[in-house]
Amino acid sequence: MEIKIGELEPGKYNAITDVPGVGVGHSTIIRGEGPLKVGEGPVRVGVTAIVPKRDSIFEEKVKAAVYAYNAFGKATGLLQAMHMGVIETPILLTDTLSTWRVADFLIDYMYEELDVRTPSINPVVAETNGSYLNDSFGRHIKKEHVYEALRKAYSPSGTGYVEEGNVGGGTPMSGFEFKGGIGTSSRVTDYFSLGVLVQLNFGKREDLRIDGVPVGKELSKIGPKGEYNKGSVIVVVATDLDLTSRQLWKVAKRAILGIARTGSYGGVYSGDFVIAFSTSERSTPFSHGARRGSLTRKKIEEGYLDLVFRATVEATEEAILNALFMAETMVGRDYHVRIAIPLDRVKEIMSRYGRV
Amino acid sequence: MEIKIGELEPGKYNAITDVPGVGVGHSTIIRGEGPLKVGEGPVRVGVTAIVPKRDSIFEEKVKAAVYAYNAFGKATGLLQAMHMGVIETPILLTDTLSTWRVADFLIDYMYEELDVRTPSINPVVAETNGSYLNDSFGRHIKKEHVYEALRKAYSPSGTGYVEEGNVGGGTPMSGFEFKGGIGTSSRVTDYFSLGVLVQLNFGKREDLRIDGVPVGKELSKIGPKGEYNKGSVIVVVATDLDLTSRQLWKVAKRAILGIARTGSYGGVYSGDFVIAFSTSERSTPFSHGARRGSLTRKKIEEGYLDLVFRATVEATEEAILNALFMAETMVGRDYHVRIAIPLDRVKEIMSRYGRV
Amino acid sequence: MEIKIGELEPGKYNAITDVPGVGVGHSTIIRGEGPLKVGEGPVRVGVTAIVPKRDSIFEEKVKAAVYAYNAFGKATGLLQAMHMGVIETPILLTDTLSTWRVADFLIDYMYEELDVRTPSINPVVAETNGSYLNDSFGRHIKKEHVYEALRKAYSPSGTGYVEEGNVGGGTPMSGFEFKGGIGTSSRVTDYFSLGVLVQLNFGKREDLRIDGVPVGKELSKIGPKGEYNKGSVIVVVATDLDLTSRQLWKVAKRAILGIARTGSYGGVYSGDFVIAFSTSERSTPFSHGARRGSLTRKKIEEGYLDLVFRATVEATEEAILNALFMAETMVGRDYHVRIAIPLDRVKEIMSRYGRV
Amino acid sequence: MEIKIGELEPGKYNAITDVPGVGVGHSTIIRGEGPLKVGEGPVRVGVTAIVPKRDSIFEEKVKAAVYAYNAFGKATGLLQAMHMGVIETPILLTDTLSTWRVADFLIDYMYEELDVRTPSINPVVAETNGSYLNDSFGRHIKKEHVYEALRKAYSPSGTGYVEEGNVGGGTPMSGFEFKGGIGTSSRVTDYFSLGVLVQLNFGKREDLRIDGVPVGKELSKIGPKGEYNKGSVIVVVATDLDLTSRQLWKVAKRAILGIARTGSYGGVYSGDFVIAFSTSERSTPFSHGARRGSLTRKKIEEGYLDLVFRATVEATEEAILNALFMAETMVGRDYHVRIAIPLDRVKEIMSRYGRV
Repeated sequence: MEIKIGELEPGKYNAITDVPGVGVGHSTIIRGEGPLKVGEGPVRVGVTAIVPKRDSIFEEKVKAAVYAYNAFGKATGLLQAMHMGVIETPILLTDTLSTWRVADFLIDYMYEELDVRTPSINPVVAETNGSYLNDSFGRHIKKEHVYEALRKAYSPSGTGYVEEGNVGGGTPMSGFEFKGGIGTSSRVTDYFSLGVLVQLNFGKREDLRIDGVPVGKELSKIGPKGEYNKGSVIVVVATDLDLTSRQLWKVAKRAILGIARTGSYGGVYSGDFVIAFSTSERSTPFSHGARRGSLTRKKIEEGYLDLVFRATVEATEEAILNALFMAETMVGRDYHVRIAIPLDRVKEIMSRYGRV
Repeated sequence: MEIKIGELEPGKYNAITDVPGVGVGHSTIIRGEGPLKVGEGPVRVGVTAIVPKRDSIFEEKVKAAVYAYNAFGKATGLLQAMHMGVIETPILLTDTLSTWRVADFLIDYMYEELDVRTPSINPVVAETNGSYLNDSFGRHIKKEHVYEALRKAYSPSGTGYVEEGNVGGGTPMSGFEFKGGIGTSSRVTDYFSLGVLVQLNFGKREDLRIDGVPVGKELSKIGPKGEYNKGSVIVVVATDLDLTSRQLWKVAKRAILGIARTGSYGGVYSGDFVIAFSTSERSTPFSHGARRGSLTRKKIEEGYLDLVFRATVEATEEAILNALFMAETMVGRDYHVRIAIPLDRVKEIMSRYGRV
Repeated sequence: MEIKIGELEPGKYNAITDVPGVGVGHSTIIRGEGPLKVGEGPVRVGVTAIVPKRDSIFEEKVKAAVYAYNAFGKATGLLQAMHMGVIETPILLTDTLSTWRVADFLIDYMYEELDVRTPSINPVVAETNGSYLNDSFGRHIKKEHVYEALRKAYSPSGTGYVEEGNVGGGTPMSGFEFKGGIGTSSRVTDYFSLGVLVQLNFGKREDLRIDGVPVGKELSKIGPKGEYNKGSVIVVVATDLDLTSRQLWKVAKRAILGIARTGSYGGVYSGDFVIAFSTSERSTPFSHGARRGSLTRKKIEEGYLDLVFRATVEATEEAILNALFMAETMVGRDYHVRIAIPLDRVKEIMSRYGRV
Repeated sequence: MEIKIGELEPGKYNAITDVPGVGVGHSTIIRGEGPLKVGEGPVRVGVTAIVPKRDSIFEEKVKAAVYAYNAFGKATGLLQAMHMGVIETPILLTDTLSTWRVADFLIDYMYEELDVRTPSINPVVAETNGSYLNDSFGRHIKKEHVYEALRKAYSPSGTGYVEEGNVGGGTPMSGFEFKGGIGTSSRVTDYFSLGVLVQLNFGKREDLRIDGVPVGKELSKIGPKGEYNKGSVIVVVATDLDLTSRQLWKVAKRAILGIARTGSYGGVYSGDFVIAFSTSERSTPFSHGARRGSLTRKKIEEGYLDLVFRATVEATEEAILNALFMAETMVGRDYHVRIAIPLDRVKEIMSRYGRV
């Protein structure tokens, strides 16, 4: 859609992969139809892997931060990441009740594929709740699916175009009572790249705003609407700027401003976490111009964050919209349906409100 | 202006005073013109008092919470309020460099007027930086001004209509490079009242959004624009719902979503604090309908917060707009000027974008 | 040993089970000898379950708090518990790399045994690192072990005497370079019971203090000493006082003072978490004597916490010592050895320093 | 006294001034006797200044962190210091109710003496409650006293020997129901210096431990004992190691372990804050030995903190004891008395328990 969010320019793929060295891979499982039989299906689930590419993420941890806006969520590995200021595994996104199996398979991967022998590994797995469409108690993700997502993320193709919508961890997710899922966006300046990937699973239909236009209200009658399920959003922010974990924490907090602009009221039963990491490949433009040593220099760098914050807010807002726009209608367990947002109607509304 | 923000209804005054038992008073000092002479002027400063009315706020502390979104700010008393979950003095808002004198005069007030003899008092004073228009280093607020604001807040008239714009703590403040200051708004349902008062002092002109419409972009050329000063916002939320301090903390976090909708990117050098308190005069509607004792009941109450969150986001967004709409052009020290936002232009833009 | 820690009296069992309605169960797996073969053994591992007994912990959640002193740890479920102020599953303790499988089996248990059908469950599993003796990458804990620990905890026998030392989650753990493991202690007054259970796995030999006596220095030469592994401690505090989650958070923070007294310097690579919960069966003695309504009353209750803090510090210090005193020499993978602390030597030193 | 706390060696002065570039100055006001007349006296109060010496602390801020163990306290400037990770003014310690006047005089000092013209300054002032001996409501500290403490701290003599006991901010303070006040200690290794200064004002007589010996119990009958006042402790930690603010935060947390060893139970009504800063004059020994670039290097540095933690715990424990040992009996308002701890009795007890 020809909607421009904000002032800054997206990168080549308008994806988190515009940050050099970041790869994304999905594994998607869609199987079965009809009534829910726990352990059999229907299955609408998957895993998305986001990887900072390097020989060994465990040996070369990335600086990172986590912001827990509303911590009704089951993500693993976040407390250690907050405390140490680093992430030492790929980041995986999945369905709530699969969180721990996926974390356990990630341990296998670290041991078997990355050759880690230190028996202290902190797997980072985040989740939103896909049980409206998926047999969530069935926990259908196997080791092979986790490996598939990771292999794709680490492959050359993992650093280019990113599939969005009903894929990977986003497979069964909703957004504003439409179909949601995975979305991504980026902002690139002369000095840095910053990309965002979201797993979208929150929102009431009426609350949806697109670039400030109250689109949701106009679409509130479109059916079938399904049952409202209170949901969550996971936001992963990557940048090539060499930020400290304290600075990344501030960046992570800004993602909430982007979420707010799409129409979130921050539901009580939402698990809204932002994970930000740095591939540390670029210094801030001012880090060598300082006059008086490290302390003066630091102050200048801090002010530079304002532009990084803007990039974060814009890319988060747009990634959420991309998840919504790229998702397709899905029928899940017990014939539950989430319809895709009708893009032609959106276009029409946007133009009526003086946009597009 | 005929702009309706959100779904819920404001109270009688559309002010924080719609929460029964909450009073507001301002003391405003405007004196002198021309070049800055520190200690002489020009003076553009004041104090705003927000009081939960009771015989003694020290004896009957109010449950409270604080959310520090971006803690580049000098407010006093917040750490103890966070830790103990209560506030035990009136809340005062003022100019940055007057923070500590105002806190000290508040100690006088507690001793002289409220008869507190316990030599451990935690004054809550928050601030934004008015030095673009005010002789801030001069610290012109005297004890009499603090007492005046408090006396007005405790008087019967303090519980009705609230002056907005260039008054009290908001006197020298800016908003989106227009004149800012104090703004307030409320939301009232059958079950609770919730009011917000802000001291607005942040924003770049181009970023201003009004109910989602990019008004700021269209007004970017209007002059004189003055110098951009990175600023802050203080948000005070009051409710008569009997919330725990943990629940109030969640409410406080939601104010950020309202701020986001007006066009904030959360500046590095902003002191954005939200203070929420409860007058504890009403229970949640579900607190007696519980089936299985306190634990089940508690869960129901928690879900009820979703409506409280919505009220908070709406009232915060609207309070910021009210501060902007009610402020008037001011010339301050060194002939610095902040112009009032041109309301007729705003109206015209809003209607062009399909609103109003 | 005849060492009295502190002023308050322990309960009947000197165990966390002295808090009415709290049960404990262990499952212990000891199998194989000799060189490590990942996936085969030697196996020295287990699970400990701590349960607040009620028909359904999911329906009747317990108020809870978590304090992350040094969050180099992989525990699951803590962020949601912190945020919501409740725990909704039994608490399990185990070996680091088994954390996620144990959490996944706990989901099975909630579904199969407690009949939970809500696909949003927050399993609380904490860990310390037993890999010095155990084949940790082998992850030998099966569903049956988790069920065994839970069944025992829920059985009538789970509320009495608690086994300590090389049992359950504590099976392979160390303490001050001696054998560590599970330890427990309690303090009971006329008004409340408070119990602590620890999984001890930290400490350098030389740093050990027993009731202030530098016992560790005197024992530093005793061999074989094994390799120093930087470790952690998990502390679970239970009380029947009806505390808010904010108050429980303060209680949780006090456990650190007890840890400090045994000789901790808070290692960089330690995962030191304290989980506190309330069975909510008793109110504080002052909660009905208040003069002026809820706010004054609340203040009195807050001051009452001083006694609760003392109970927490004392019981934590003693639980750590009990873990040490009750553990037995163990030979694990690759013939690694942890010897039991020599109790006769301890006794002799204590008496030389004017104790016992 | 010949008591050695811990393993590491103190510096030349066994004071925070053993960290190169750190200065300390006191201003002490002792005036009047007899019954309290608010505003007249008796006066037993003062200010202690701790300064990282440099041309302008505002221009060359120091990296810093704050740990709020029990935040029942009125200190100013801590939230911004936590958030930005820097301190930009000297650190002042004083009596509770003088906090804001002292902060305001510090603004004068920054403007007049350090020539700061930026109207956004974050004064760091911490406090404990001296009202048992002092006319606290009288707020007797004047601008001249704040300037005196600062001038001394910045003078050459401010970097050597530090007065302890009844001086500066510590003038009216108590410790374990004896006379308390200011104490300091340091630990110096080949690679770094670390110093601690405390303002001691907490503790019940019976709880006092000296190097683990229950000295307090034996001294419980010595009179006059005065009334027990629940108090606080402020700990300032300085180091010349170039730590990040995240690492300084971890250091700050360790001070609590030192406090615990002297007999603290962490009172409900205590304001226990630790402020840690780095003069950044030395890198960690390993920062140039790294193999693979910044990420691997960072990990090594983190582990090095274990030694820094040990230095912090030891110096904190010893600084508290020094405050106690150096304080002298004081008679204050209303003839309240705090006696000095009887050092000969302490010596005798320590030797009876196998120490000294």
